Amino acid sequence: MDSINISQAVIKRLPRYYRYLGELKDEGIERISSRELSELMHVTASQIRADLNHFGGFGQQGYGYKVRNLYDEIAKILGLDKSHKLVVIGAGHLGQALSNYVNFERRGFHILGIFDRDPKLVGKKIRDVYVAPMEELEDFIRCNDIDIAVLTIPKTSAVEVAKTLVDCNIRAIWNFAHVDLAVPDDVIVENVHLSESLMTLSYNLSRM
Amino acid sequence: MDSINISQAVIKRLPRYYRYLGELKDEGIERISSRELSELMHVTASQIRADLNHFGGFGQQGYGYKVRNLYDEIAKILGLDKSHKLVVIGAGHLGQALSNYVNFERRGFHILGIFDRDPKLVGKKIRDVYVAPMEELEDFIRCNDIDIAVLTIPKTSAVEVAKTLVDCNIRAIWNFAHVDLAVPDDVIVENVHLSESLMTLSYNLSRM
Repeated sequence: MDSINISQAVIKRLPRYYRYLGELKDEGIERISSRELSELMHVTASQIRADLNHFGGFGQQGYGYKVRNLYDEIAKILGLDKSHKLVVIGAGHLGQALSNYVNFERRGFHILGIFDRDPKLVGKKIRDVYVAPMEELEDFIRCNDIDIAVLTIPKTSAVEVAKTLVDCNIRAIWNFAHVDLAVPDDVIVENVHLSESLMTLSYNLSRM
Repeated sequence: MDSINISQAVIKRLPRYYRYLGELKDEGIERISSRELSELMHVTASQIRADLNHFGGFGQQGYGYKVRNLYDEIAKILGLDKSHKLVVIGAGHLGQALSNYVNFERRGFHILGIFDRDPKLVGKKIRDVYVAPMEELEDFIRCNDIDIAVLTIPKTSAVEVAKTLVDCNIRAIWNFAHVDLAVPDDVIVENVHLSESLMTLSYNLSRM
């Protein structure tokens, strides 16, 4: 199977398949037909067959999909079979919420450091990690081979911190600051712009 | 101008235009050409012209866009000219982060109530609102004409709470729980599935 050929549209749908398959797996279900999965996920069975045909060999006529195998295969495509080292920058409520979220750890995203410029937050323990001052960020990233930085700081500081992160050869930024970060092409930025999500909700509400 | 005819693809891009225009407005800039906006936003000028042509009359050859008018017009399309009443359900870190976010208030999203089932959180003051026990949720929504419920609770409770919200005639749910909520067609659900965003990042990282 050549994962490179899977379209972006399918990729976008994979996390949802992964979630449903994970729940089926946890319930001890070994096989599921595309019809059953279709009813569960409220997606057409033909869409499911088309999407999951990319993962050849797991779906068979009259047999259905092997839940565990399909789950593992999607995990591999999503890169969840590898582990990642993260730092969280910004130990405010959002940073703390993300740092406390055990499911990230379960999926191989290990938060090794949490940083903040506020002296009142420095030294605070969040799960097993003590919040460190921003001055220590650069050395920490270099010494600990950090892959991913999570940015939960205001947009004014985010632009400047992103520059530092690029200098430290960070590979990816999960950006919650409401700003577009300018980074080289080989640095991945995944934005979570909460205000834009709320505006979409507001738009849909105004159309009802 | 008939906003009904604007495509979903354009709608999805509007919050980003809105953000850039807001920044220009705050800097006191009155006009901007599509070329200048294009350089700022890293989008082609023709894309900008095509998108903003839906808001006829603001862009003129050799004159550019009137920043303030365009900003106001997009706000209207996004329903940001109306004010909304919200409750936050779940006063954990994420609920607190959202409740503390002043920009939502500025855009007309007023958080009137915060609820949690944890007695340790009940009574806590977040900005001007005291966290109330879950038992008071239904009456509060009905008496205060709440439009939007923000769900920042685990997925097991989210399903049950969503049913209650529907019974109380809530109009929209901003859902942070990692589950698909089953609601009638006239209730809007806007999902923020953080794990799925992190998986997209992970996918892109594994392709580098």
